[in-house]
Amino acid sequence: MTLIIALDPPTGVDPVEWCRSIFERTRDIATGFKIGLPAIVEAGASRIGEVFRGFDGLVIADLKLADIGDIMALTVEKLARCGFNAVIAHAFVGYERGLSTLSEKCRELGVKLVAVVSMSHPGSVEVMDGVVEKLISVVERARCWGVVAPATRPEMVRFVRSRLSWVKILSPGVGAQGARPGDALCAGADYEIVGRAITRSSDPREAARRVVEEQRRALERCRA
Amino acid sequence: MTLIIALDPPTGVDPVEWCRSIFERTRDIATGFKIGLPAIVEAGASRIGEVFRGFDGLVIADLKLADIGDIMALTVEKLARCGFNAVIAHAFVGYERGLSTLSEKCRELGVKLVAVVSMSHPGSVEVMDGVVEKLISVVERARCWGVVAPATRPEMVRFVRSRLSWVKILSPGVGAQGARPGDALCAGADYEIVGRAITRSSDPREAARRVVEEQRRALERCRA
Repeated sequence: MTLIIALDPPTGVDPVEWCRSIFERTRDIATGFKIGLPAIVEAGASRIGEVFRGFDGLVIADLKLADIGDIMALTVEKLARCGFNAVIAHAFVGYERGLSTLSEKCRELGVKLVAVVSMSHPGSVEVMDGVVEKLISVVERARCWGVVAPATRPEMVRFVRSRLSWVKILSPGVGAQGARPGDALCAGADYEIVGRAITRSSDPREAARRVVEEQRRALERCRA
Repeated sequence: MTLIIALDPPTGVDPVEWCRSIFERTRDIATGFKIGLPAIVEAGASRIGEVFRGFDGLVIADLKLADIGDIMALTVEKLARCGFNAVIAHAFVGYERGLSTLSEKCRELGVKLVAVVSMSHPGSVEVMDGVVEKLISVVERARCWGVVAPATRPEMVRFVRSRLSWVKILSPGVGAQGARPGDALCAGADYEIVGRAITRSSDPREAARRVVEEQRRALERCRA
């Protein structure tokens, strides 16, 4: 399966009930769910984590961790206790006592570590893009399970794939941000992360099905 | 006043009660409190924020935000509603639709934006130190209220001060991480952030008083 659904509750709703409602309607279609920082900050990790109890797919805390290793390790301990089995952190903080400490803790807890090497907003080119080789080398040293690279920039997905054949690539930016389902998969990604195009649809289940179907057709075309 | 106390509850305690206990004993000595990501993730921002109700000093959410602008803005809206009046974010996400969006939202809400340009762990030299000029230019463009620079590296504090005369400099790393009270102030910082040396002391109030006294003496010496 190739679809991860991004759960970012709109303001003014109960974030836990909102996540539960989307989750229950799409859990058999998605390979996993990615929960953003605002919802976790608002409700706390344990209330959000409870939503996914019994689900055996990916439950990703998208905190974009970027602290010293000890603080990131402490955070992931709390997340693991709350039912999250994957976490997103920035390669930018470096390896020594940064991702080294975090990746060790993740392995100990059985939590998948996913590192950001590029982002989808224009500011990403100002600093991050200039050091992408260094960021990839941090990912290699930390032996991260996965990497985040934006579907809106397929050349970046291709570049990461060419440098790290073994890594899982997770690509956000499909739908509301402009990439079409399948664009990133065809460029070498393993999963596409889709948020609003599914969660703000009047029928999230049907919208998720359509995305998976479009992914399948795109893959048929680009592999032909 | 020159002391900010870092509240990072140890594992196995109720994070809210632990923060409240330190806060109540030191609130008239500290100019503010910095609450780390693990406590906010565990308890949620509103339960942590309640601890500081009625306090008119700095209440800093140290989330080290490093996401796209919209997500950071949404997070800070939630934090402001919970009583936080300052937030820490990374300059490395860049300005355009990164810190630009966040700083606009912060100004609208009256929340002070503090940007990280350098960190205290060894991994900071691998990527961040090589682009510190770019990070400082992001801080300038976003007109951040403050900057985080580690007390353990006074030359970095001096460098930031020489480049940004108007910015507040907040320096962590005093005490358990090795810097002495006053080291960063003498290098040009406005506040020193002290955690375990105060919070793990058997008498946090007395420990905080001692830090302030040592800062005062160090400043007398270096200004003599």
